[in-house]
Formats: sequence, C-alpha cells, structure tokens
Amino acid sequence: MKVIEVSTGKREELIDITSKIMNVVKEEKWTNGILFLYVPHTTAGITINENYDPSVGDDISNNLKKLVPPGNFYKHTEGNADSHIKSTITGQTTFIFLEGGRPVFGTWQGIFFCEFDGPRKRKVYLKFFEER
Amino acid sequence: MKVIEVSTGKREELIDITSKIMNVVKEEKWTNGILFLYVPHTTAGITINENYDPSVGDDISNNLKKLVPPGNFYKHTEGNADSHIKSTITGQTTFIFLEGGRPVFGTWQGIFFCEFDGPRKRKVYLKFFEER
Amino acid sequence: MKVIEVSTGKREELIDITSKIMNVVKEEKWTNGILFLYVPHTTAGITINENYDPSVGDDISNNLKKLVPPGNFYKHTEGNADSHIKSTITGQTTFIFLEGGRPVFGTWQGIFFCEFDGPRKRKVYLKFFEER
Repeated sequence: MKVIEVSTGKREELIDITSKIMNVVKEEKWTNGILFLYVPHTTAGITINENYDPSVGDDISNNLKKLVPPGNFYKHTEGNADSHIKSTITGQTTFIFLEGGRPVFGTWQGIFFCEFDGPRKRKVYLKFFEER
Repeated sequence: MKVIEVSTGKREELIDITSKIMNVVKEEKWTNGILFLYVPHTTAGITINENYDPSVGDDISNNLKKLVPPGNFYKHTEGNADSHIKSTITGQTTFIFLEGGRPVFGTWQGIFFCEFDGPRKRKVYLKFFEER
Repeated sequence: MKVIEVSTGKREELIDITSKIMNVVKEEKWTNGILFLYVPHTTAGITINENYDPSVGDDISNNLKKLVPPGNFYKHTEGNADSHIKSTITGQTTFIFLEGGRPVFGTWQGIFFCEFDGPRKRKVYLKFFEER
C-alpha cells in the first residue's frame, strides 16, 4: 500500500490530487490495471470531476455546504456532524483505470480530495491491481 | 478494457444499461469475479437501482434536479455546474459481482447511466478481474 | 463469495456491520488485499463513517431523510421512492484495504449498512482479492 499526504487550507474545499497520485504511479511503475483510492477519514471524501476550471470544485464544495449546513442542530456535538454527512454523500473510495502507465480519464477528469472539516493534514491510501 | 456507448435523449435522465453490459460479459466470456465500471465524464454518473418500475429512475433524476437545480447562481459559467455536482453525488464508479457469467444482483437491481447534461453520446469503460 | 445478514429495526437507520465483516475476514483467513462489499438491495446502501459516537449514524440517517423526505409526491407508488433515491446517494458498493488480516481504517472508521426502507432482513455480499 502506498500513501499520499494532502494539506488542506480551509474548512471545506476540493483539492486536485491527480498529479500527486500520478507521481506514485510513475515511481511504482504501475502499468495496466486498476488503481484503488481510499480515504481513511470520516470528515472527508474523494471524487472524480472536472479539474480544468477550478470553479467546478468550488461549486461542489459550496453546494454541499448549502445542502448540509454546519451548525448545532445535529446530535453529534463536536461541531462537524455536517462534515460526516458530506463524507457519506461523496464517498470515501473510488478507482481509476490505468493503461500503459496512464490514467484512462475522460477529457476533463481529475481526482479531488474533498475536505469537509479542515484545515488538516490528510492522507489517501493507494493499492494497485495489475491486469493479467 | 472494453467500452460501451450510451446515447442519451434528455438533459437529465437515468438509462438502464444492464443488457448492454451483460452483452460484453457474454462476448468476453467473463465468468467469476468483479466487473468494474467507470464513467469517463464529469457531468454524468453511474448507479445501481431498481430497473423493474421505470418510475424509480425518473424519481432519482427529478429529485437530484430539485436538490441541485440548474441555474446561473454557480461560479462555473458553462450552464452545467449543477451537472458536475450531481456527478459527484452519484459517483462515477461502481462494480458488480459475477458468478457463472451472471451478475449477482438483488431481485430488482439493474445498472443505470446517469445523464445530467445531455442529450449526448456517452461511454462507460469496463475492466474485469477474474477470481482465482 | 461470502454473505453476511443484517436485521434492521427501523424504517431508516445506519447499522455498524464492521465486526460482522471482520468475522468473515478471520474465518476466511483473508490477509493482504482488497475486500469488496456489495449491497444487493435497491432501498439500502453502504458507507464508511465514524462508529465511535453512534450520533454520527443518526445524523446521517436524519439528514438524508430531511433532504429526501418520504411521501406521495413521487412517481413510484410503493411508498419507498425516497428510499431508492437515498440508495443512489450513499451508493451500494464500497471497499476496504486489508493488511495482515486487519482493516486499514482511519482512527474512527467503521462500515455501516444504510437501511432506508426497513425493518427488514438484509444481506451484504463480500469478495476478496488477494494482493500478489
């Protein structure tokens, strides 16, 4: 298993981690198969979306905040109940396909770490399964 | 990697792609293992849900539209910011188990392509890992 | 493929199934790799979140109910249209990494079955891929 580290700067934001992930792919010489990504946090998530216009990440973050606002009207009293809920909405796992050492992305796709209770030091775990 | 094509007919709709996927499974003689499905688009998604009553797909589509309405109140100015957000809510990846060449579905389950910015020609990528 | 059974007690609730899943891991002597989890239902889901404070699961369940309320304003007329929508929001699939027979969780993580149309007898399917 490989690990990447992500430093987040706000309570809620999406951070493009595509190049960090591809650095590991190159170092490990992973070629053809599936790369599985796992977020070991309960107030963060992971998603694939457009990384060309940074507004897209902001819109996702802002809209999730609107749907699930921070506040004191939850049972969990640590002030981050909304962050846990957002983590379940985006999910904590995803995967990408690799062919010839490159991600099989659509034109605009990149991988985003979703911070819902920052700023913090965060991690993403990686496991690769080679195609036979 | 295999590819299926999906033609969508509306801006927002769920399309049952179960039989298209099972055609590839048969052609490739995939038998026991996990079939991974990947949507290479940032304004679409994939989900597993009931495909017996077509109203279920309509309800999902209509309700996501209500939660995340199209409009000009987003930062991304291409008119499809809502579509990107919905893509993150449904997700772009899923998987099904195969046993004896058949999907291990629950009684009512099928696989849906989720269009959030159509009509368009879309794709879904497939990779299969055989169980040893 | 292995199967675990889950009995739910309410219409909507999150149930911690971590120890049930880890019992199978121990019985099967699964060691290093990825454990894939699949929910064969269309009105339920699966998620990873905090299982230390049970309020977190309640908050997730209550908030999804607020975002997608039960009611008769859907096309699907069986009274559980909202349950299908929630199933798509949480998702029906997830995975965890195993190292040395143990889950590579973050500090607070556990696995939850998400019931959206209970009480019922439910199932979760498991397939494990060993790392070579």
